[in-house]
Amino acid sequence: MKYFFASRTNRLLTSPLRDIREMSGREYFISLAEELPAEELFPFKLLEEAAVSVFSSGPSALQYGEPAGYRPLREWLDNDWNTRKGIRTVPEQILLTTGTQQAIDLVMRLLLEPGDSVLVEHPTSPGCLEVLEMQGAKIVPVTGDGDGILPDLLEHHMQQVRPKLLFAAPSFSNPTGVLWSMERREAVLDLCSRYGVLLVEDDSYGELHFDGLEPGDFYRKYPSLFALDTADQGGHVLYIGSFSKTVAPALRTGWAAGHPALIQAMASVKRIADGQSSPMNQRLLYQLLAHSPFKWSDHLSMLNREYKTRLKLMLELLKRPGWKGSQYIIPEGGMYLWVKLPDGLDSGALLKAALLKGVSFLPGSLCSTGEQDHRYIRLNFSHPGRDELLLGMNLISESITEFTARS
Amino acid sequence: MKYFFASRTNRLLTSPLRDIREMSGREYFISLAEELPAEELFPFKLLEEAAVSVFSSGPSALQYGEPAGYRPLREWLDNDWNTRKGIRTVPEQILLTTGTQQAIDLVMRLLLEPGDSVLVEHPTSPGCLEVLEMQGAKIVPVTGDGDGILPDLLEHHMQQVRPKLLFAAPSFSNPTGVLWSMERREAVLDLCSRYGVLLVEDDSYGELHFDGLEPGDFYRKYPSLFALDTADQGGHVLYIGSFSKTVAPALRTGWAAGHPALIQAMASVKRIADGQSSPMNQRLLYQLLAHSPFKWSDHLSMLNREYKTRLKLMLELLKRPGWKGSQYIIPEGGMYLWVKLPDGLDSGALLKAALLKGVSFLPGSLCSTGEQDHRYIRLNFSHPGRDELLLGMNLISESITEFTARS
Repeated sequence: MKYFFASRTNRLLTSPLRDIREMSGREYFISLAEELPAEELFPFKLLEEAAVSVFSSGPSALQYGEPAGYRPLREWLDNDWNTRKGIRTVPEQILLTTGTQQAIDLVMRLLLEPGDSVLVEHPTSPGCLEVLEMQGAKIVPVTGDGDGILPDLLEHHMQQVRPKLLFAAPSFSNPTGVLWSMERREAVLDLCSRYGVLLVEDDSYGELHFDGLEPGDFYRKYPSLFALDTADQGGHVLYIGSFSKTVAPALRTGWAAGHPALIQAMASVKRIADGQSSPMNQRLLYQLLAHSPFKWSDHLSMLNREYKTRLKLMLELLKRPGWKGSQYIIPEGGMYLWVKLPDGLDSGALLKAALLKGVSFLPGSLCSTGEQDHRYIRLNFSHPGRDELLLGMNLISESITEFTARS
Repeated sequence: MKYFFASRTNRLLTSPLRDIREMSGREYFISLAEELPAEELFPFKLLEEAAVSVFSSGPSALQYGEPAGYRPLREWLDNDWNTRKGIRTVPEQILLTTGTQQAIDLVMRLLLEPGDSVLVEHPTSPGCLEVLEMQGAKIVPVTGDGDGILPDLLEHHMQQVRPKLLFAAPSFSNPTGVLWSMERREAVLDLCSRYGVLLVEDDSYGELHFDGLEPGDFYRKYPSLFALDTADQGGHVLYIGSFSKTVAPALRTGWAAGHPALIQAMASVKRIADGQSSPMNQRLLYQLLAHSPFKWSDHLSMLNREYKTRLKLMLELLKRPGWKGSQYIIPEGGMYLWVKLPDGLDSGALLKAALLKGVSFLPGSLCSTGEQDHRYIRLNFSHPGRDELLLGMNLISESITEFTARS
């Protein structure tokens, strides 16, 4: 029997991401392409204890829960954000989701008609671009510099295309790891507010910073735009993120927080999307965070020290001759390094060669529409261990050398 | 700030389901409206042991997993279906989802363009109707009798509207609990095959049968249409279901199984929808089913004995004078009784009165498009305990009596 798929699925179904992911499943394969945290840093012993506590509370922990998510966890988030991030919410403003990816999908399904214009920080997360393509949005990239997207350019686009929303990650974007300055944060929020454009603020990586600041102090220096959104009764920011990079991905617990009207409507879309995320996993997280010896702040500091070390190793390896001619800005956080290849090299062609050697990375073209970033690659430094990183980086540089030697 | 939601969300955002669910959250509220299994029957002690085993296997249980779902669980399903249901698949034909609801959402997003015609068994599950409305589908109900939907009528609709798919639940549909005869199963499958219409077969309730048959014997007598789909290389059926009604809903684990091309494309849509469902929960289920003292078959038999008793009690209560004039067909399985109210009564009006008394049910109009079933109500007998059932049924019958006495 022949199936006829909806036309908007075309790009999705031919995505090269699928191939990379499938090949990464091969056991001898080193992947610097993934978005994986380091599993050896998961608090898995404490999570095991938390699981025992959750189960011993009786069978209701295994029943359907509130569609918006387990309320005590929403209250915990509310309190944590209030204390560390200066965010003022109530639990009704928080919807628990299956990771950040679902938060993006839900808000886009709720808001976008086919053909609607959407501004995205350029380059941006492949997962967000795929959702926008599936919704038939007109994607308009907004370029930035080391301090964030450029307000003049943003305002120009806002006037030209009347966008419905702007998607951005002000603290360590995927893929570039850029950290917006305070001034830029205020300018962008002001524009969103003046033009009535919703800012979808992806804070998936905000906790991963390598400046040595305490987790609370970081957010005082670089506040989330959601925290800054106090003028004109707020409501200009939807704040999304997850525990996938900070605790463990398999719990599949993320959030969307914003104006109650927006959150309530997203909850309705979530009802048809999957009913609800796992309330058991949400209880597990709550138990870990609120009622176990786990120290949230210490855990984040430990992650940041460890990831800083891994980034440092990657930067050392990039100094080797094989990488000559490549360029990058050293990120102050996140999980990725965004590398511009030496002149004349195409990331797609390089990937094919690298895959044959048993190593992968993310080709930059997946982080933008069109072919603009075909000379870039995204390297993940959080997941590979020391040996994997050494070998993987060497294999990529071998591939580069083969290309540059040939030309 | 004012938000502009996509037009197709209109019906979703004004759904009366939301009110019922919110009100059901009130602690003193008796709900016969929900789709909840009995939590006192969850194998939660064994699940606790399974959790300890999963955690003791090390941190990789908490990492991202295969987007299609934990492979050993897919293999277990493959084997269980093969043994008990005569279904021949390979694990590549199975996608694990966040419950049946997500399986429905994914296939509809994949296949439907706005305006596409979809046939649905009439009446049908409210969750499916909401997805179809969100996708902008033209919903065409197909009526049936006690043996399933009517083949002549089905063929007529297939010729008239050229539908892309048919959604049906041949074993104990939500809401009517009807069980299709073998003859009807074959006739419907034959039509789907001849007209090239994909049958989305919802088997969420197939394990819950009150005929005393062993779990395996039941499927031999009433095979899934997926098992019967062997002509013309198959591929005419997408088989969906979940562990929510048979093990525990909080694990949020369901499946879609079908032709590899269809499953692979659905997996791509799932990638943008939420990346993946919780691999930890899938491991937990696998541990329970494959490596614990849990006896799947005995557990299902126990559930069926218990639910049969609860249905019997509900049927007894329906004989009381307050319910005079109401009509229903006694289901042989599932979790619901579909009751036609006495002449002149409207389920919406009755619900308002019942809510004031502290009890809820599902008004029939949510199980169809338009107002066709406004004289029906769906009563859930699986979740309420004996006392709740007694009180809840009495409160509804009081409301009925007040209406009928008035007219």
